[in-house]
Amino acid sequence: MPVPYDPANVFAKILRGEIPNHTIYEDEHTLAFMDIMPQADGHALVIPKTPARNLLDATPEQLAAVVATTQKVARAVKKAFAAPGVLVMQFNEAASGQTVFHLHFHVVPRFEGTELRPHAGGATDHGALAAHAAKIRAALEG
Amino acid sequence: MPVPYDPANVFAKILRGEIPNHTIYEDEHTLAFMDIMPQADGHALVIPKTPARNLLDATPEQLAAVVATTQKVARAVKKAFAAPGVLVMQFNEAASGQTVFHLHFHVVPRFEGTELRPHAGGATDHGALAAHAAKIRAALEG
Repeated sequence: MPVPYDPANVFAKILRGEIPNHTIYEDEHTLAFMDIMPQADGHALVIPKTPARNLLDATPEQLAAVVATTQKVARAVKKAFAAPGVLVMQFNEAASGQTVFHLHFHVVPRFEGTELRPHAGGATDHGALAAHAAKIRAALEG
Repeated sequence: MPVPYDPANVFAKILRGEIPNHTIYEDEHTLAFMDIMPQADGHALVIPKTPARNLLDATPEQLAAVVATTQKVARAVKKAFAAPGVLVMQFNEAASGQTVFHLHFHVVPRFEGTELRPHAGGATDHGALAAHAAKIRAALEG
């Protein structure tokens, strides 16, 4: 049985405009923005605008829209950060590492010989996130 | 510029029937089978039947088909292994960890407090993989 969607999650609050985000891209069905606990500079998230807890309960339409935006963001992140690689991750339920229970795909620029930072801790550097979002938006348009 | 597709990769050989695989699921557009270097029991892969190097050069149709099958396999793997979580990963280019250059999504059952095994080394246990594939196929049908 799928676990019910909880509309109190932080990405639902972002979608309702209750808390701000560093937006990269938006269309009718999806939103992309910066992870506020980035595992690397340029770490972005892609979510559907409609409720889904994770991959397990999403509709085919949500998944197709989210993966299409994930591709756009992956290409832009790669270009913006001149990254030789891009890692895509998607976590389902707490045992896999999911901490926000609204479907999201992580998009992380990767470089040979560098480790990811832990996904937690540390103060959020909103100035850096705003600058990274602007770089990725420019790559999306270029 | 996207990197060209190399038809000598091992998943292309699987699709051409040149090397065997432990199949979980197959439809017109996608194939799912066991990773032969599993990071956890039940580690499965989902690929499109047509050429794509990775997410960066895939078509919207390939992506929609692959993510739909990834969902089917994630649900089945979760059920087959009674896993509380499922991790989905997708690597783009060597710097991110991609080792086979045909688009693939990893689907890995996850349990609280357990680490993934390294993605390499060790002899492949084909008996175990065949048994795991059978469990997942049964979950897909059930």
